[in-house]
Amino acid sequence: VAKRLDKFKTTIFTQMSMLAVKHGAINLGQGFPNFDGPDFVKEAAIQAIRDGKNQYARGCGVPDLNSAIVDRFHKDTGLHIDPEKEVTVTSGCTEAIAAAMLGLINPGDEVILFAPFYDSYEATLSMADAKIKAITLRPPDFAVSVDELKSAVSKNTRAILINTPHNPTGKMFTRAELEQIASLCIENDVLVFADEVYDKLAFEAEHISIASLPGMYERTVTMNSLGKTFSLTGWKIGWAIAPPHLTWGLRQAHSFLTFSTSTPMQWAASVALRAPDTYYEELKRDYLAKKAILVEGLKAAGFIVYPSSGTYFVMVDHTPFGCENDIDFCEYLIKEVGVVAIPTSVFYLNPEEGKNLVRFTFCKDEETLRAAVERMKERL
Amino acid sequence: VAKRLDKFKTTIFTQMSMLAVKHGAINLGQGFPNFDGPDFVKEAAIQAIRDGKNQYARGCGVPDLNSAIVDRFHKDTGLHIDPEKEVTVTSGCTEAIAAAMLGLINPGDEVILFAPFYDSYEATLSMADAKIKAITLRPPDFAVSVDELKSAVSKNTRAILINTPHNPTGKMFTRAELEQIASLCIENDVLVFADEVYDKLAFEAEHISIASLPGMYERTVTMNSLGKTFSLTGWKIGWAIAPPHLTWGLRQAHSFLTFSTSTPMQWAASVALRAPDTYYEELKRDYLAKKAILVEGLKAAGFIVYPSSGTYFVMVDHTPFGCENDIDFCEYLIKEVGVVAIPTSVFYLNPEEGKNLVRFTFCKDEETLRAAVERMKERL
Ligand SMILES: CSCCC(=O)C(=O)O
Ligand SMILES: CSCCC(=O)C(=O)O
Repeated sequence: VAKRLDKFKTTIFTQMSMLAVKHGAINLGQGFPNFDGPDFVKEAAIQAIRDGKNQYARGCGVPDLNSAIVDRFHKDTGLHIDPEKEVTVTSGCTEAIAAAMLGLINPGDEVILFAPFYDSYEATLSMADAKIKAITLRPPDFAVSVDELKSAVSKNTRAILINTPHNPTGKMFTRAELEQIASLCIENDVLVFADEVYDKLAFEAEHISIASLPGMYERTVTMNSLGKTFSLTGWKIGWAIAPPHLTWGLRQAHSFLTFSTSTPMQWAASVALRAPDTYYEELKRDYLAKKAILVEGLKAAGFIVYPSSGTYFVMVDHTPFGCENDIDFCEYLIKEVGVVAIPTSVFYLNPEEGKNLVRFTFCKDEETLRAAVERMKERL
Repeated sequence: VAKRLDKFKTTIFTQMSMLAVKHGAINLGQGFPNFDGPDFVKEAAIQAIRDGKNQYARGCGVPDLNSAIVDRFHKDTGLHIDPEKEVTVTSGCTEAIAAAMLGLINPGDEVILFAPFYDSYEATLSMADAKIKAITLRPPDFAVSVDELKSAVSKNTRAILINTPHNPTGKMFTRAELEQIASLCIENDVLVFADEVYDKLAFEAEHISIASLPGMYERTVTMNSLGKTFSLTGWKIGWAIAPPHLTWGLRQAHSFLTFSTSTPMQWAASVALRAPDTYYEELKRDYLAKKAILVEGLKAAGFIVYPSSGTYFVMVDHTPFGCENDIDFCEYLIKEVGVVAIPTSVFYLNPEEGKNLVRFTFCKDEETLRAAVERMKERL
């Protein structure tokens, strides 16, 4: 294995999903629904396949999808952008992240992450040979310390990565936090990479795209995907929105990482993104019910549950159960209780910082959530 | 744009396909069929979508596809490999190439390419910060000069990339060439990256996987894809076969480039790869008829046509028409003749070497090929 990837292990999501299967445990680990996506989107994919939309898509995306992305972005942010020059369709948001890092970050550039952070950020920054600085978001509210952030910014800082709603904590960056980050970025000529895949799963606060703040669009890459919002995580359709000069760099990387993304799935995605508001309202209503089952159950089982404003994740402190650290606790939870959660220490530069915390997902049907909760209440 | 990608332009395939649309020219440039893939594969994808196979696939591939890949590889090479530890499904062969480079090549490592070479090899090696040495394959037969190859190998050589059948020339590496390359690799402890996406489009010679030669499997990454063989280039299903220690490195890169590949398309691919031999025989018969139309037509139009043994490409020398170079000729061909071909100078480290050569594809229906040929015979 090349040195740039030497320190990374099998992703924690893969590890835990394999253990779930092996032990027959209920999987509240990796974030994928155990229910299906909506029929109107599935039927659109079927139609595209039947219609012979099966050859290479345009590298930057099929025109209908690029324009559906532009329209949704306009609705969400009020910004008008060009579907040809400012939108790039990728093979999931994971590829958008890799393309942003490899296409826009030079060796030695510094990039600031908020810990806990999604594992691919660190790995793709290592591929780009960048330096990582991490600012820790601490429970209970996972607020940004602007002082820490200020002292992390240097003349080598090239970008700040913001994931809101935030995986794994469920934190949503507040307008005040985003404004302070924005002014720091403008002052210091820093880019923002905004991973907003959970934007439609904003429950307790309003989702704000940092690209919509004054002066920010021109320095922001906004990334999103179909999978979370449409319960089709396996379709791997993502995209990056950025002004032309940044789009150029990330498209160059995209061209040589995957060249283009599944054509029939892109046509279906263009139909999905034109869903009426009622689709999103219903999705949120369903998820609120699921969230209530999980959160109440975790509390009843004895966890310290931290408030989650968005995403389909909830962070808890497991220390009431007396385990040394998150890895041991998760092992115990799988083997003795029959439930899978995600240990979070892998999402920090310093694993110690995550040793009390584990993440549960509620993107499962209510019956599954109830069964998991019952096991934890009985067996923990 | 990051320095690692600074020197690259919009891929020539994208450029030429855009020009084809703009000028209403017949597109014999980018290699994608203008006919559809087989119904049994399309129906399998539809079934998978209907059956709810729509969430994240296992990172290394859905088990049925991994085992279909293993079975086909066994049939083709006689080798028995492990579907869990030696097969990785990727988002097209393009991603397999990127994952091999980023996962297995260190900065400063030397990699040997045969020019003309597919553009993503150079770009992904640049992402991996590797040094490229190129051995030129020269018309008419594009044979390998083993002496040149020997003198290119140094103690820093980490890998040799072999694309057979070869894009853009249609050359197929002979057993003698592969054996000489193999013994060089074994002597010097060099890896082979084998891009074999056109293995089922072998017309005038037998396709040989270098992994099947004695002592080679353990040092070879064999890459392939669904798109070319099943006329579904837009589905973006590829894979890499390699011994566990090499698979580990490329999976690490794959995990963070895309994580996993479209689940329903993978299920369909597993059905495709179990196609009976008659499927491949019919495909070849159809392509031989198409090839005859194109080759005869190009000759009649006045080109010097080089023999193509495999792939759906043919290389020609355009100098009988008096253009300075391949770029000018292709521009003339689009604007004055109404046909798109691919200039090849971009596939050499030294563009001069390709200035007489352009590539045509015959992966189009016979009517389209006849129309293109007629235009060239009349207007050139
Ligand atoms: C790409 S696998 C991980 C799924 C996910 O986003 C998560 O569980 O955090
Ligand atoms: C990935 S786009 C190029 C298609 C192709 O393989 C070719 O035309 O050479």
